[in-house]
Amino acid sequence: MDRLKKQLDFIIEIDKVKNIMRKTRLFDGSRRENDSEHSWHIALMAFILSEFSNEKIDISKVIKMLLIHDIPEIYAGDTFLYSPDRSAKSEEKEKEAACKIFGMLPEDQKNELLGLWVEFEKKETKEAKFAAVLDRLEPLMQNYLTKGMTWKEFNIKFDQVINANKHIEKGSLKLWEYAKSIINESVEKGYLGKS
Amino acid sequence: MDRLKKQLDFIIEIDKVKNIMRKTRLFDGSRRENDSEHSWHIALMAFILSEFSNEKIDISKVIKMLLIHDIPEIYAGDTFLYSPDRSAKSEEKEKEAACKIFGMLPEDQKNELLGLWVEFEKKETKEAKFAAVLDRLEPLMQNYLTKGMTWKEFNIKFDQVINANKHIEKGSLKLWEYAKSIINESVEKGYLGKS
Repeated sequence: MDRLKKQLDFIIEIDKVKNIMRKTRLFDGSRRENDSEHSWHIALMAFILSEFSNEKIDISKVIKMLLIHDIPEIYAGDTFLYSPDRSAKSEEKEKEAACKIFGMLPEDQKNELLGLWVEFEKKETKEAKFAAVLDRLEPLMQNYLTKGMTWKEFNIKFDQVINANKHIEKGSLKLWEYAKSIINESVEKGYLGKS
Repeated sequence: MDRLKKQLDFIIEIDKVKNIMRKTRLFDGSRRENDSEHSWHIALMAFILSEFSNEKIDISKVIKMLLIHDIPEIYAGDTFLYSPDRSAKSEEKEKEAACKIFGMLPEDQKNELLGLWVEFEKKETKEAKFAAVLDRLEPLMQNYLTKGMTWKEFNIKFDQVINANKHIEKGSLKLWEYAKSIINESVEKGYLGKS
């Protein structure tokens, strides 16, 4: 029962993910999204869009990665994609948070989840590259569909958006093509400033 | 591109799941939970607790089932577990909603997701039985940890809780044992009325 107790304590602790608010908004713009909603949505996006991965992937692994990828933010907080605070220091803080939260689990599961999380962060394997596609694509769609609400709120410009998102191409050429089309359309429609 | 267009339209439409509110509350009792948060949490619970399934299961299939199981509620609304409205009529309404929402996808994916949804609803396969365990266990834990907030609000009693949840046993004897322990403790502590 000690094993089940550890698992249940972890399950209870991660409920806090539902209160970690992101900068981006629901597609209808009505409110900000939280990390659990984001994770649910992009796990499903990976499932639906898996045919567009550049390489043949283990989609179950991608889904698991996306379900857990933001859990360490319970302790480390959400770091905005375009924040100047994104640094080696914030990465170190997230790593510590990951060790703390996944360390609540029995050893074998701690190793499995921490392994998935580290793999996602490094973006080197084909599964991590494809997982990163969805993690970037959802906020792009959120900005496009809300006429650039988050971009405007934080004064984000075209070059920043391209630089922060261009690695989508490494996971999916097809979805990078789509992403560029909505970024360009956003500039044309005035949702995103060119400079 | 027609195929991607259909997939993106589906991905945009299911954002509405984030506004379908359940009767049960977050573990800290602060607010009600929405369907996307619930789906994220129980998909992860399935992943963490899979070793307690009575039968050897395809855990990826269980996770996919749980990620999509509440999507038809966009059109059919959430039906409270203990509502007297749970009837053949509400089942019919949910089936129509499922055909409508999954019907937005390309034919092959419509068939896959509708198939998963029907399988979950029927609770006959080993994967559906285990998926149902988590769908019931999270609300039980939510009630236990909030000292029976939802049970008290809707005047739910012990016999109703046992009857609505006893099928947990069909998916996991071990987790039904845990579920019974928190139900009984809830009665002892006054979170749940005996009659």
